[in-house]
Parts: sequence; C-alpha cells; structure tokens
Amino acid sequence: MDSIKVGILGFGVVGSGVVKVLQKNFAEITKRVGQKIEIAAIADLDLKSDRGVKVDRKILTTDGFAVCADPKIDIIVELVGGTGVAGKFIETALDNGKHVVTANKALLSEKGAPLFKLAEQKGKLLLFEAAVGGAIPIIRTLKTSLASEKIEKIYGILNGTCNFILTKLANEGGEFSEVLADAQKRGFAEANPTLDIEGGDTAHKIALLASIAFGTQVDFKQIHIEGITKLSAADFEFARRLNRKIKLVAVAKKENGSLEIRVNPTLLSIDSPLAKIDGVTNAVAFHGKNLGEIILSGPGAGSLPTATAVVGDIIEAARGSEIPSRGIPESSLEKFPMKKIEDVESEYYLRFGVKDEAGVIRDISNVLAKHKLNIRDILQLDLNEFQREVPLVILLHKANEAKVRKAVEEINQLKCVNGKAVVLRVEE
Amino acid sequence: MDSIKVGILGFGVVGSGVVKVLQKNFAEITKRVGQKIEIAAIADLDLKSDRGVKVDRKILTTDGFAVCADPKIDIIVELVGGTGVAGKFIETALDNGKHVVTANKALLSEKGAPLFKLAEQKGKLLLFEAAVGGAIPIIRTLKTSLASEKIEKIYGILNGTCNFILTKLANEGGEFSEVLADAQKRGFAEANPTLDIEGGDTAHKIALLASIAFGTQVDFKQIHIEGITKLSAADFEFARRLNRKIKLVAVAKKENGSLEIRVNPTLLSIDSPLAKIDGVTNAVAFHGKNLGEIILSGPGAGSLPTATAVVGDIIEAARGSEIPSRGIPESSLEKFPMKKIEDVESEYYLRFGVKDEAGVIRDISNVLAKHKLNIRDILQLDLNEFQREVPLVILLHKANEAKVRKAVEEINQLKCVNGKAVVLRVEE
Repeated sequence: MDSIKVGILGFGVVGSGVVKVLQKNFAEITKRVGQKIEIAAIADLDLKSDRGVKVDRKILTTDGFAVCADPKIDIIVELVGGTGVAGKFIETALDNGKHVVTANKALLSEKGAPLFKLAEQKGKLLLFEAAVGGAIPIIRTLKTSLASEKIEKIYGILNGTCNFILTKLANEGGEFSEVLADAQKRGFAEANPTLDIEGGDTAHKIALLASIAFGTQVDFKQIHIEGITKLSAADFEFARRLNRKIKLVAVAKKENGSLEIRVNPTLLSIDSPLAKIDGVTNAVAFHGKNLGEIILSGPGAGSLPTATAVVGDIIEAARGSEIPSRGIPESSLEKFPMKKIEDVESEYYLRFGVKDEAGVIRDISNVLAKHKLNIRDILQLDLNEFQREVPLVILLHKANEAKVRKAVEEINQLKCVNGKAVVLRVEE
Repeated sequence: MDSIKVGILGFGVVGSGVVKVLQKNFAEITKRVGQKIEIAAIADLDLKSDRGVKVDRKILTTDGFAVCADPKIDIIVELVGGTGVAGKFIETALDNGKHVVTANKALLSEKGAPLFKLAEQKGKLLLFEAAVGGAIPIIRTLKTSLASEKIEKIYGILNGTCNFILTKLANEGGEFSEVLADAQKRGFAEANPTLDIEGGDTAHKIALLASIAFGTQVDFKQIHIEGITKLSAADFEFARRLNRKIKLVAVAKKENGSLEIRVNPTLLSIDSPLAKIDGVTNAVAFHGKNLGEIILSGPGAGSLPTATAVVGDIIEAARGSEIPSRGIPESSLEKFPMKKIEDVESEYYLRFGVKDEAGVIRDISNVLAKHKLNIRDILQLDLNEFQREVPLVILLHKANEAKVRKAVEEINQLKCVNGKAVVLRVEE
C-alpha cells in the first residue's frame, strides 16, 4: 500500500494534537483514505520540550523550508501561525507542488488572496477547515453541502475566549478585568488576549466564511470590528432584565449586491439559538431562502478538536478532492462593494450614565426625537452597584447607524449625562 | 462549456424543489461546479398536475427506466421513494454507469447493501445526504470532516413530525390524537403517519448514520424501535416537573466492539442541547474522544431544504468526488454484533397508574428492591386531569433493561396497579 507523506510545521498545541489524531486513529483513517498517512517530517525551533507524543527523532528538524521543499512530502501542514514566515512556508510548499493544510486565519484573511491563486495555478489545495470553529465542519459545509444555495446571512459566535468571558459575566456577574484574569488562569485566554477580546480573531474568521459563502475576496481592512472590553456589569444586568444575552456576534450579509460584514457585541433574545451557546462553544448560523436556518455548533478551539479538523483536511487532500480551495475557482470570484458601518441599519441598545435629577429623560428623548429615532424600550435602574451614576438604557427600533451616532454624540454633551454612552446592537 | 445532464425520477414535492433550486441558483452553481447542470429528463406517472415550475414539456416522460438507460444522462436523481420500484431504478441507473442521488432512507437502510456494492463496482457514486435531516449536512460531515475521528456516540432528533407533536404536547398540553390531527391539518404529518410516529422513519435514518460512522452494514431488523403513541398528557406534566423534555431520540453507540442502536422516547434534561430543539427542527449530536460534541441542526424536511441537499449531492457527483459513497470502501466495512435491547443499560422513567390507597409505594418499592433497582426520584401527583387513577412516576438510576422489564411485569400484576406501566428512557 502506498503512503501519503505529511510534513508538519509547528510542533505546538495543535501540531502535537495532529500527531496524536494521526497515530490513535491510524487504522480508521487508513481504511477511509485507502492509503496510509505517514508523518514524514516535523519542523519546529524547539526540539526539546516534551509534547506528550512519541515520534522518531529522525523526522524532527528546525528547518521548515527544507520540509516545504522535500520532494518525498505530499502535504504540508502549516501550524506556525501569524502573518510572517507562515506565508513564506505556504508559498514555498505550493511552489514545490504540495497540498497545504493550515489553521492560520490571520494569514488567510489578511494576506490569503495570492496564496489561493498560487494553489490553483499549481493544481494544489490550500485547505483551512481548522481556521474557523475547531472541529465544527463550517468551511467544508459552505463549499459542498451549501454549494447549491445562495447564502444570504451568516451569524456566528466564533471566539471561545470571548464567549467564555461573556457567559461568566452573564451568569456570575463581576467586572470584565476579573473574569479575563480568571480565563487566563484557566487557559481559556492567552497572555496577550487583544486579538480575542478586541474582536480581531472573530473578524478573521467571518472574513473567511464570507469569502466562501459569497464567492468573493473580502477586504479585511473594511470590516467593522468592536470587541467586548467596553462592556460593564451594568450591561449584563440590563440584558438579563430585557430577556436578552450579550454575545460577540460576527455578521456577514449580502443584500442588493453589497456586503455587510461586522463584528460587535450584540444583544440577542434569550430564545434565539445563538443566545443558548455558552462557554467556550462556538456556533454559526447560515441563512438562505431555500435552506431556512442551519446551525452548527461545537468546541471552537483546543488541541484535539482543532487537530480533528486539520486531519479532516489532510484526508480531503489525500483522497484527491476536485473541490476548489474556496469552493469556487479563483477566476470566478466576484467583487462586491462593502457597506460602510455608517450605512448599516440595526436595532440599538444605548446605555447612558445620567445624573439622578429631574428632566434627564426629557432632554435625552428630545435629542432622539430630533433625529427621528424611535424608542422601543426604556429602562432606568437605581441599582446599588452603580451608585455614582444612574444607568439609563434605551432600546431603539431599527435605525441607521450614522443617525444613531450623531444623536449619541449630542446626548454625550448634555449636562445631565456623565461620560460616554455604550452603544450595542440588538438582533432578533 | 460542457454540461452535466441530470435525470429526475419522481416529480413530487422534492422533485419540483430540485428543479426550482437548479433553476434559481443556476449562475452560482455553474460557477462552483465549473460546468452547467442541465435537467435532461423528468419521469413521473402524473404529467398533468401543476408543480409551480416551468420545464420544457419535451423532457417529461412516464418511462423512468428509459431515463435510467439514457446514454446522454450523467446523474439520476431518484425521488420516487419506497422500497419497491425505486431500487430497480437505482440498479438500472448504476448498471448504465450513472451516478445516483437519492433521498430514499427506507430503501437504503433496509435494502441498500447491494446497491452500494454495485455503485462501487461501477466506479459510480450513490449519494444520499437528503435522506437524513433535510439540508443539514449530516452525512457529508461524517464522511469527510469527521473521517479523522472515531465516533463513539450519535444522538439525534431525526423526525420533524414527531418533534412537532412532542413540542406541542409539552407546551400546550392536550392528548396525542388531537395534536396529531392538528399536525396532519397543517401538513406536518402524513395522512398515514405510522412510519413517523411509530419511529420507523427515525430508525431508517439512524441506521444510515451508524453505518457511516462505524464503517459497517447495519442490520435494520435488529434496531429496537419505540414510537411516541404510548405517551399521554401525564408524561408531559411529569417531565415538566422533573425539569425534563420528552423527545424521540435515536441513539447509536459503539462500545467494546458492539453496537447499540435504538429509537425511543427519552426524557432529556432541559439544559441539554437536544432538549432545546423544538418544532419540526431536526438535530444530531456527534461524540468522539478528540471531538467533544458537535451539534448540527436545521429544518429536517420540506421541499426546498431537502432539494438543497439533493442538489448538493448533484454538485458532488458533478465535481467528480473520490469519497466513497459511505465514506469507506465497501470492502473495508466491518461486522459488529448488535446489542440486544435486554442488555442495554440506561436510566429509566416508569409511570404506573395506581389506586389511591395505603401501601402502594411499599408494594412497588418491594418489587424494585428485590430486583436491586435503585430509585432516583419518586413523584406522585394528585392532578385533577387524572382523576380515575393516581399517576406515580419512579425514576431509576442506571439499570439493565432485562431487569427493569422483569420488575415492571411483576409490578403490573400488583392489585394496587391499574393497567400497564409506561416505560421511557432517561438520558443526560
């Protein structure tokens, strides 16, 4: 029996998981592929730390580029991460006629276009199921099962760190910084959590999903990104009283030929399926006219779930797939204008810190009325925890973002208002 | 540009949906496949009824076998259904070197083995994503994304009719027969609902999933099947008070080399993900050591969701997939013994109708103790609705089915007990 030879770049958490999955499930995988999958090389700068797996020392090397050029290797698995040398590795591997499997969402969403083109020129695959939602089969589903559908909207909870923090804040209270510290202690947040909590990681993922769903190259820089650091305990208390949950939601829509792609903390009705996704779990909802709504959920990260997705891609490459890497030939990608965030319409949650005095609601509602913004709910709480100022929350009916911003700026200047308003979106 | 020619057998609800999807999404599908997909023939005995779609009358025929033998057709879509002539159509199509796409779960689960073998001999695909869960990508996920994993357990809510009825009984009360009649009126249940409400349809589907997940041919006749017709209003009232929901759950497990496959009404904790699946929605949960739990959900039936899955399979065949029809070469299928239902262990819910007199609980608990069955919860309700007898519910800790059956038979003979006990399973 022939064997397919794999070279792994990056022997960290996911890399060692890939070795474990390939070793433990060797018999099943061999039967399904009809060929053995053999780990022929592993490259990492650190060849000393114990990874909890047994591999032949002879296949270890510090020279990633040599692995990418090795003529006996069929598939390169890039798990170095980041937007630097990883791109060079992938380029070298493709240039040398190898399939590439990667979990690198940052690289593919920010600098992926030339790599996908190169893969197609070389007749090779550049697969990335593990880049979004761990083992949840999100990308393959878009490329295959839903290839028959015009996807209209995607909603996703795509970052386990954020969802863990938001779930804890909703269920147990506390302030953001404490819960973040706890998440870091428990390994659910990185030492430098910026990419997660400021929404960048979620944006990388929704950019990849939108590019496949809509058959386009998404300009990452045009995505509107808000993180979860501006939220405070008051917002979770209000959400609870409004029968809603706050989630960091990624949205991608195609409407009238233009794209709306954004990441923002969002109040969801507690009955909506994504509101029920708690902890480190990820979920994505696909909407289409014929389809209705399909929801996929599961562990969005972690060594073995991510490795399961990586090995799923290795199997696809080994089986000899004819499905284009992004589900559509690169030459058939179309360009669509991206909606500016100012032109987006949504429902809004506005929280103001106001002085506990007469006339406050009159002054604020004056401004809203002037901008023709229609109030849906209004809620002021005299909570012990928020003694220095009284928090006032206003939910607006569907409105244009530019209008809302103008009104909020004006309200922020009112004498009865302290500091700046927190503005969140509301979705059904 | 070349075109791929499709012949459709059965121009009913799903058949006309397939025509709609292929016509409406023609541009997108053509780009993704790199070829046009053309409907070259449609066979049905009824060529007169209006299907709400426009097709050239010249492609209509009443002769399905002629379509299966037509040398210009590449892919046959079998939507005739049932275990009769449909099998002959598929055989003829494969014999003539065509790929086959079908939604026929009854045929494939009961008589599929020789058809899958024939497909492989001919080097053709026999695809059936639409047979389970409408547009939810369940089968393709098992064959591809999860090909790297040893699946240990599958739990599914796989029948929309049953889930609609169970949801209504849980939320609004009423008796089974009334709610079934309402479901029939609203088009959520067939005129002859037996296959749905007695669990046969769910069993067809879990048999197909188990065969892919475990790489085996499941003997359909050995599946233990219970439907939902034995449930009464009292069970839903008890479930509510026990913080549980009753769902018709399909279970497939592989443990110590043997298979456990069954369909039964089951009490699920209201916090479990499947308990949250309401109405006609379907859902399936896959468990594996590396994977954790992945849940896929969506509309499990209906013309356009099912058609979306059928066209997804047409696209797979048109792209020239190398993935075996059941995810594994037929020659690599293994045989595993099936656990008898008597050997299955689970937690149990027992509802007895008892006389309202002294000594009842003593007599019943005597029998349970004799059989070493451990009571977890006991709940007797003196509800107005159940005046003629008092319903008594006992939840048992994990126990062997044979033991439970023996004890229940003995209890059914007690003087203080009216009629026969309702026995349901309980899963966390």
